[in-house]
Amino acid sequence: MHTIREKQRLLARVRRIRGQVEAIERALESEAGCETIMHQIAGVRGAIAGLTAEVIDDHIQTHLVDLEKHPGALNTAAAEELMAVIRTYLK
Amino acid sequence: MHTIREKQRLLARVRRIRGQVEAIERALESEAGCETIMHQIAGVRGAIAGLTAEVIDDHIQTHLVDLEKHPGALNTAAAEELMAVIRTYLK
Amino acid sequence: MHTIREKQRLLARVRRIRGQVEAIERALESEAGCETIMHQIAGVRGAIAGLTAEVIDDHIQTHLVDLEKHPGALNTAAAEELMAVIRTYLK
Amino acid sequence: MHTIREKQRLLARVRRIRGQVEAIERALESEAGCETIMHQIAGVRGAIAGLTAEVIDDHIQTHLVDLEKHPGALNTAAAEELMAVIRTYLK
Repeated sequence: MHTIREKQRLLARVRRIRGQVEAIERALESEAGCETIMHQIAGVRGAIAGLTAEVIDDHIQTHLVDLEKHPGALNTAAAEELMAVIRTYLK
Repeated sequence: MHTIREKQRLLARVRRIRGQVEAIERALESEAGCETIMHQIAGVRGAIAGLTAEVIDDHIQTHLVDLEKHPGALNTAAAEELMAVIRTYLK
Repeated sequence: MHTIREKQRLLARVRRIRGQVEAIERALESEAGCETIMHQIAGVRGAIAGLTAEVIDDHIQTHLVDLEKHPGALNTAAAEELMAVIRTYLK
Repeated sequence: MHTIREKQRLLARVRRIRGQVEAIERALESEAGCETIMHQIAGVRGAIAGLTAEVIDDHIQTHLVDLEKHPGALNTAAAEELMAVIRTYLK
């Protein structure tokens, strides 16, 4: 969000996820095996986790500190550590 | 999978998920707030977890034991316990 | 960490988790049923998630912004939203 | 559970987890940094996930089918697929 580049990046991710969900729909309709479908679902879950991480990162970078009023106030090393921990839980 | 009723139920779930993903796309395009989008994403994640639980349950009921060859061999109480534990981890 | 009160609170959580782990040890030694042990393990997982949430919250409150240099720079509403999202994923 | 070898293996895992929890306790007492503690906690979470996978695997192998009454009834390929999917969600 917030910037056009960021918004385009998130939209691209969401459209890929939509494509993955449509593939599950087709697999179910064509009676694909359980295993195939379970893998496809796990793929969507992973993609959702990646999207979540990106939105959270964005939120931390742009909302936790109003950078116009408080330039330089966000400790970027601490923000990166935080994202590293969050990513561990998003897998 | 496997039975027409089950297949219809899974398809209905997947179509709902597709609708939720499309809603995120629209929210991003209309510059909705970060918070809104984070909630929508969490909703998709929950729906994917529900779908996964259903596919796994189906897999346990129909594939772990070939019920034509071994009728009555699946311990249904143990299968239910297993699903209860798996659901804990799918939230 | 950081403050004595916070440190005491985290220590109390970790000690409770140690107690839960010791209970699993005793359950295994006394040949408790699978189901009992699976529930105990799920309990530890939940407690670890609670501890993680508290440490992350602490990290956000005390490290993302150096509050001595930049008082008032942390947007507390945005920090709370962030924690709400993170808690969703820590269950 | 169930077999002495399996029980010993699970006990060894649980004791390692206890050791990891005790290390978090010591780290908190000695005022270790947030980052160190977050990594230690993520380690315990991973170890709990590994323990859970092993107990679930055990449960599937020994409880879903009474192998004395129904030898050969458990489809081992389907059981392995199931475990592969469950492990995806236990990370």
